[in-house]
Order: sequence, then C-alpha cells, then structure tokens
Amino acid sequence: MRQSTLFGRTLRDAPADAQTPGHKLMLRAAIARPLAAGIYTWLPIGFRVAKKVEQIIREEMNGIGAQEMELPVITPAEYWKETGRWDTLEPVAFRIKDHSGHDFMVSYTHEELVMHHGRSELLSYRQLPVAVYHFQSKGRDEARPRAGLLRVREFVMKDGYSFDADLAGLDKTYWAHHGAYARAFARMGLDALSVESDTGNMGGDVAHEFQVLTDVGEDRIVLCPGCRYSANMEKAVRRAAAGAASTAPAMEPVSTPGASSIEDLVRTLGIEAGGLLKTMLIRAAGGEVVAVVLPGDRELNEAKLRKLVGGGELAFANEADFAKVRGIAGFVGPVGLGARIVVDVSVAERGYVAGANRKDTHTRNVVPGRDFAGERADVHDVKPGDECPSCGKPLEIRRGVEVGNIFKFGPYYADKMGATFLAEDGTRKPFMFASYGIGVSRAVQTIIETNFDDAGIVWPAAVAPFDVHVVAMPVKDAEVRTAAETLVADLEGRGVEVLYDDRDESAGVKFADADLIGCPLRVTVSKRNVGAGKVEVRRRKSGEVLMLDAAAAAAELALLAKPS
Amino acid sequence: MRQSTLFGRTLRDAPADAQTPGHKLMLRAAIARPLAAGIYTWLPIGFRVAKKVEQIIREEMNGIGAQEMELPVITPAEYWKETGRWDTLEPVAFRIKDHSGHDFMVSYTHEELVMHHGRSELLSYRQLPVAVYHFQSKGRDEARPRAGLLRVREFVMKDGYSFDADLAGLDKTYWAHHGAYARAFARMGLDALSVESDTGNMGGDVAHEFQVLTDVGEDRIVLCPGCRYSANMEKAVRRAAAGAASTAPAMEPVSTPGASSIEDLVRTLGIEAGGLLKTMLIRAAGGEVVAVVLPGDRELNEAKLRKLVGGGELAFANEADFAKVRGIAGFVGPVGLGARIVVDVSVAERGYVAGANRKDTHTRNVVPGRDFAGERADVHDVKPGDECPSCGKPLEIRRGVEVGNIFKFGPYYADKMGATFLAEDGTRKPFMFASYGIGVSRAVQTIIETNFDDAGIVWPAAVAPFDVHVVAMPVKDAEVRTAAETLVADLEGRGVEVLYDDRDESAGVKFADADLIGCPLRVTVSKRNVGAGKVEVRRRKSGEVLMLDAAAAAAELALLAKPS
Repeated sequence: MRQSTLFGRTLRDAPADAQTPGHKLMLRAAIARPLAAGIYTWLPIGFRVAKKVEQIIREEMNGIGAQEMELPVITPAEYWKETGRWDTLEPVAFRIKDHSGHDFMVSYTHEELVMHHGRSELLSYRQLPVAVYHFQSKGRDEARPRAGLLRVREFVMKDGYSFDADLAGLDKTYWAHHGAYARAFARMGLDALSVESDTGNMGGDVAHEFQVLTDVGEDRIVLCPGCRYSANMEKAVRRAAAGAASTAPAMEPVSTPGASSIEDLVRTLGIEAGGLLKTMLIRAAGGEVVAVVLPGDRELNEAKLRKLVGGGELAFANEADFAKVRGIAGFVGPVGLGARIVVDVSVAERGYVAGANRKDTHTRNVVPGRDFAGERADVHDVKPGDECPSCGKPLEIRRGVEVGNIFKFGPYYADKMGATFLAEDGTRKPFMFASYGIGVSRAVQTIIETNFDDAGIVWPAAVAPFDVHVVAMPVKDAEVRTAAETLVADLEGRGVEVLYDDRDESAGVKFADADLIGCPLRVTVSKRNVGAGKVEVRRRKSGEVLMLDAAAAAAELALLAKPS
Repeated sequence: MRQSTLFGRTLRDAPADAQTPGHKLMLRAAIARPLAAGIYTWLPIGFRVAKKVEQIIREEMNGIGAQEMELPVITPAEYWKETGRWDTLEPVAFRIKDHSGHDFMVSYTHEELVMHHGRSELLSYRQLPVAVYHFQSKGRDEARPRAGLLRVREFVMKDGYSFDADLAGLDKTYWAHHGAYARAFARMGLDALSVESDTGNMGGDVAHEFQVLTDVGEDRIVLCPGCRYSANMEKAVRRAAAGAASTAPAMEPVSTPGASSIEDLVRTLGIEAGGLLKTMLIRAAGGEVVAVVLPGDRELNEAKLRKLVGGGELAFANEADFAKVRGIAGFVGPVGLGARIVVDVSVAERGYVAGANRKDTHTRNVVPGRDFAGERADVHDVKPGDECPSCGKPLEIRRGVEVGNIFKFGPYYADKMGATFLAEDGTRKPFMFASYGIGVSRAVQTIIETNFDDAGIVWPAAVAPFDVHVVAMPVKDAEVRTAAETLVADLEGRGVEVLYDDRDESAGVKFADADLIGCPLRVTVSKRNVGAGKVEVRRRKSGEVLMLDAAAAAAELALLAKPS
C-alpha cells in the first residue's frame, strides 16, 4: 500500500485528552478515530491489525470445532424479556423503537438470540455438543468510555456459545474454549492470565477472565506468587484466621463528638482501625436497605454484595432510607438497626467499637452474635499481604485489562427460555450452555499498551499491519523510486505485506512515521544504498541494522518477515 | 464440517409465508433464519456463502486500489444533520437516544461519516485520489420487508467511497468502480446489468444500478433490445413524437354523471384513453399541492415527480387540499385549478377531455397552453413498445433485483459539509465524491433465485458453501465410515472444503439434503462402492455421474472442485 494516499494521517502529537500510552499511540499512528464518545472508526492501518487479531481467534475457534455464523445487531426485545435482561441491561442498552412501535436493542451480547436458535435447530442429543461463534458489533452505553479503545460504546466482539447435553460435556467444552483463548492471546502477543471472575449481569456461577497485567488496567487482580491462584478482586477470597471467642465485657456508650469517620475515631479513641466496625447503609436495586458490617480496616466489595442481594445497581442509602432504618449518618452501627444486616466474614467474634445510631456517640465492646445478629457473607476486598486461600502465601494485587471472558452457565439460560432437547434416555433436558467473549478493539489497544517504546508502537509480528515498511528517499530520484518499487512488487509477489512510503517528505519525517507505525522491519532504499547495490533493513524492536544485497533482498526479507 | 452437528437443520417444507423460490430454498437449506420481520441470522452454511461473496467483492475492490476500513454502526446525529439527512431519512431510520440524551442512528449508509473523516485526514491534492470501503451492518426500517433476504431491515453492505480532486478524476474513479462491480457480480454467478438509475435520497445526479433480471424483482427495468440503452423505470425516458399544433374548437362542457374514472369516460364518451387528460392532485413532502396532468393512457412516475418537487415522500391530496385548490374529486381538471400545475411531456398541443372541477362534468377541447398553463416535465412511466430514446426501437420492460448501485455525487456532499482540500493551484477545493454499495444478503438470495432446480439450490462453484458434499452410508458400517473419513481428511488436506454427512439417516434423506444444500459435487461412499474400491461423484448441476478409483479420488476431486 502506498503511504502517499493512505487514508488516515499520522499525528505528531496526541490530543490532550488521550489518557494512556496506547490511547496516544493509537491516535497518533492512525489506528482509529473517534466519531463520538466511545465510538470509533478503524482507519485502514488499524483495520488490518483488527483483522489479524480476528483471524487468529477464528483459527483457534475453528481448531476446537466451533462453527462461524452471524447474528444481527438489531435484536428484538422479546428474546431479552424471556430472561429478564431487557430490564436489567437497560442502564447500558442502546434501545430502539421501530416505526411500528416494536422494541429492539443494539446487541449487548447474544446469549438469548443464540439460545433461541438452539431451541429451534437442535432437536436431539445426537446434534450435541455444538459450539458456534460470530464476530459482531455490540453496543453498550457505558457512562464513562475510557482511554480510547479500552472502554468503548461500540465494538466488535467475538462471542461464542456452546450447547452440551450434560455437565460433564459442558466442562470439557468450557476448558476447550479456555485453551483456545489462551492460545489466541499468546499468538497475538498478549500475556493474558486466566483468573476467576464474577459473572456480573451474565448469570450463571463459574467464569474466568483473561487479564493482561498493566498499570493502565481498570480491574484489580489478586495473585498468589506462590501457587497458581488468581482472581478478579470482584471474586477473590483470602484465607482468614479463626478468631478466638470473645471475652469482652458488656457494651457501653462512648461520646465521640464530630468523629464520624474511621480516621477520626482512630485518632480520637487511639485504637487500630481493625478494632472498629464500619456499618454502611446500601440501597439495593429493588429499594431494600442493607447494612453491611465490616472491620474498619476492610473495604466493601461491591460485586460480592451485588451478587448477594440478587444483582442490579447498588447505591448509598439516602436520607429517607436512614430515617426508615433509624440510622444516624456518621454514627450508624448494627445494634438496634432496622435493616437487613450483612456481617462480613472478616468480622471476628470479639469486641468492637461501633456506631450507636445516636449523634456523636459510639458503643464499645460490641460483639457480633452476642449483641447483634446478621447473615454472614464474604463482602470485603482482599488486601495485599492477605493469605492466599489456596496455599496461604501473601497475595499481591495488580492492575489488569480484561481481554476475554468465559462463562459457564449450565442450565441457566435454557431454563429461563424453555430450551430443551431430546436426551438419549428419551426425556427432554435443558441445554448446558456457556458463552465466550473477546473484544477485538480492546485487544488491539492492549497489544499497543504492552508493546511500545518512546518512538512508537512495536507490533508483534503476527498482528503487525504490514510486515515491512519500505522507505524510499528521495522519491524524486527516478533510480531510487524504481529500485523501491521493484522491491515492493517483488515482496508483494512473495506474499509479504508492504507499506511503501512514497511520500516526498524528509528522512526525519519518514523515519519517525515508520517508528510510530511500528512495522517489524523497516527497509530503506536511499540514493547511497542503490548506488552500492544494497538495502538497509532495521528491526523495529531491537534497532538491529542489516545491510542486504539488493538482488537478494526480497527473498531474505520474506524469510525475516515470515519465519516458518 | 460434520453434518451431524451442523448448527441449522434443513426443512422438508418451507414456511407458508415464504414468497419466492429463493426465499423458500434459503429457509429450507438453513442459509438464514429470521429473528424479526426483515432481521436475519446467517446460519453456518449461509455464513460461508456470504463470506465468499464478500471475499470476491474485497478482491475486486482491492484490485482497483481501494482501502478497507471499518466505520461504526451507531452513528451520531450531528453528521447527518450537516446534510439534512437526519430529517429526510427519519421514515426509514432506526434512531437511538443514549442515556445522556444524544441522538444516533443505526447507520443507513456512511456518506456523511466518511466525508467527515476525509475532511480531517485528507489535507492536500497529493493524497488524492483515494477510495475506501467497508463491510458493515446497515439498518433501514422498511415498512414492508419482503421475500426473505431480498428486502430486509438489517443487512451487511459493502459500501465504498471515493475522493477525487476534480471531475475528470471522479469520472475515472467512478468507472473503475463500475468495472470492479461488473467483475464481482460475474464472479459470484450473477448476470447483472448496469442500468441508469435515480439517485433517490442519496443526492447527486448520476447513478447506476446493477440489476439482475428475474420475475421476483421489485424494480421495473426498461431495456432496448436494439442498442445498449437500459434504465430503471424511475429514470427511464422514451423518444416522443412531436405532435401537430392544435386546431381544436373552443372548450365546451359535457355532462358526465358518475363518470369519475378513465375507464368510465372511455365507455361513456366512446373515446380512447389517450384523448383524456388525467389530473392527479399530489401532496409533496413540504405540504405543497401539485396537480400532475398526464394523458389518460399514461401512468405517473413517482420517482420523477419526487425529484421535481425536491425529494421527500409523496401522498395523494386529502379533502382539505381538494377544497383549497377548488378541485372536485373525480372531476379534477387543469383549467382554473388553484395549484402548481405540472404537465407531463406526453401531453400534446391538442384538444383533450378533462375534468371541469364541477361535479359530474368534464370539458371537451381543452388545449394545453391555450386553455391552461403549467410547467412541462417528464413525469410518466415508459410503457412496453415505447421508442428507445437512443435508437428508436421498441422498448421492453422486465423485473429486476437491484444488487448494487453506484452514485456520482460530484461536490454535493463536500459542499454541504464544508469539506475541502488544498488544491495544486493553492486554492481550497471541495472533494469530488462518489459512493458504491452492494448488499451482501440480497446478493446471496439473488444467486439462489437464479440458480436452483426442483430439488434445491445449485450453487455456482465460486460461492458454494462447500466444494464437496461427502455422503457416507451406512455410517454404522465401520469400513464405510473409515473410507469416508479418510477421504474427507485427504480432501481437506488439499484445501477442498467438505461437508461430511455422517448422520445415521436413510439414503433418501441424505441425497435430498445434498440436492437441497446444492454443493457442486456430491461424493457417495457406500458399502458397495467401498467393496469395489470406488467412489461415486455426481455433479449437482448436470446430474452427471462419475466413478472414481478410491485411491485417486481425493486428487481428482480437488481438480474438479478447483479447476485452475
């Protein structure tokens, strides 16, 4: 491809609002351009990368026998209503009403639609197991699109779905997909770690995410350096020591004027944060007010609590909620509170200082179980240094970008949608279902976030937009131009993908663009080289320079570009 | 691919509401399935065909130097508003409002969005000409989706766009695309005729459609068997003889009680329909009432009238409109009418019978020009037998399916969107723009509509879902199964695409499915054949049967499947 007429120009500087290295480089190298917040166009260079990422995923999906198909973007409400997700997804859905008044949603994912096809097409156990997938645009009206392609409102997802006859088959299919994902990410140059994850608004129980550890990530990943344990913070657990039973004396009030935060109390009472009980009033999606009781040195894990209360959005309680449960803001405690009480498993059977539900007052020697009742649940965040639930070693916490996720639903969707097949024993059974997703644009930017240097992108060869960047200069020199074009034609004849810089620009501009765009090999055809019968090859990653004989250059470059 | 677990089952009978042969076969052969009116899923077999069609188009587009990219589906209103199409497309648009109140449209096409990118990315004439394209989902809320994939509400379109520096360049680029389209349709097995067409709601003046002539088509195509003239009825013209000037006497009223139609008048007055003037009151999009005057034997051409009145939807005048212009329903005539009067070019300077704008009354000897004034325009349909505008021979009219269209806009979009580049002479000039579209799903069904027999689809080899359909029977016989699976593996190793019928079904069911799905070659591996060391090959199209030695079968089939 000729760079002079390439649609999409490189930028010397990134826009001021670009947030991460990958976001800046993605814009500067003309990978993609925004049309609205979180809505992007792939320019030709980025498109080539996206298609290579897709092709790697396709090959791995085909390799485990999955069948490619394509569902629509505009999806009828009726199927979403069968599972209740027409309502639960509303906050992030792009809804459409047609001119006849029918409701649709820009596809958020496709579980309901694929399950609908499955119940029509798959009649018998003899057609199972079967896995299908497609690459299709998804719409998600994220409140905060972020960092270029890392969190967008429209993106192409490879989503796959599998139908099995029983749980043993599902397990096999699920792990086959896990393997395909691991191979796909490795091939595209992403060092992706499989971690246990929360199922969020997807339903079901078992799920894994593929996380690329990088500081630009939004997710918090809990890792054990001693064993293979790893989990998203939303799901991570720790090994907690069993506390001794309490010997605390009876409760007594303590005046704490104006001390309404953990920090205030630590300072005022001279105790550790861990000796306090933090009681948070949370309004669940249905309007129920839940009091969550945690040690003062622990943070609430919203995902765990959301799951406990049945999903949906959580909010802090409002004034009316406080009044209803007789809580006083800043002095809430579990004793005598008129709310559903959830006691985190980190809370020991010992005496704590807790809010007294009276202004400027706390209570000493509050013992869970003795002085107040509540349901026990794990609703806290793991902290660095907590013990690994598997081996007991200290856990670490890192930032990660989720580049893929897989969900083992079991009969969850089939039950909601009445989707059954004729089993081998003659009965009708629900399909054991799973789904598997990779967002292509996020994968592309994550590759950039983890493969760049000061000068620009350093593409892994498998996903580079072009194998070779041929730079001719000066192009006004007929001999140089002829030599460059002969080389380009020869390379293309050998199946090498070439970006040919035929612009009448300075060496500085051309080399800077070559570094920015980041093809693995740069070949310079200059006046001096042509005279000496040579071309200069520079490896983008190492900076290593080779001089090749012009006559043999195409053959050697083909080997360098596509080592077999 | 194994047929036992193929996602998508063949149907013995088509649903009762399937409208055309292709619609029925498309459903029966598990090409696609509806999820809502006009919204379809490609099942794996159909997906393979669609991707082959796409790949043919891609190769032809790349062949003329066009660059592939990808714009989003969810497109912001702001760009559509720059050209006014936010409003004019509303009747067929799937509109979306996001949670912040911003307006979007599911992409109808992408002219505005591509022009926006062009004005940002293309600064100088040195970057021109440039052509880009993408395959992307489009949404069009058609009031009447029709005949399966022939008229749908969501479909993938290959839409391409070109930017040129001047009209001469635009012309060259436009015809390069015309050639690429002609080659692409020929390669996918469509006999597509290029015809002149109306530009509809796209803007601009020059446009061509690629029409496949078939009775299932909705479009009426005017053809000259004597020369190369061909045009969509919406645009077609005829050569009209100049009439002699009128010698008619003065107008006089004639009583025509209850005779309000052309047929009534022909019977009552004993004259030819061509001796009557038909005056139709039409309400244009802006509310203006237009009286269209045609000879009684000519039909109004809505597309021509729509263009004349500035676009938008046309409707028949309502009661209030009639009152306003002093027209009496059934007895409307041009004389004394208080409306804008458009006189079709078919109306001669002679005496006609016309409505008198009085109940039960007409007027004789009404002479255009003498008795009423009006603007002259071509707003009539061509009829079979009319003279070709080019050579004068009698024209024919056929039905066609529009499988592609190309539009030469000139500066139309650039002017509306203020999109200019730095020209070679140092001035800023508007981009000369064009766009080019092919709907993939309509192309696929049109291939079926023109390639089938009583038993099913007969795919052209270039777009067949599989090259070879291997039918093993009985599959319970280990020897047969081994022979079949060895052959399948050998074929796949040679790059032949195989559908392998490994189902435990009768020969009748399996052969019927093979005919229905319509792969070019069917290979039967049976007990008898295996014993004789043979395989039976049947060509789907001709029914010709060949017996091949099993040992050499894969090599020979590879040659039959992919003749070089």
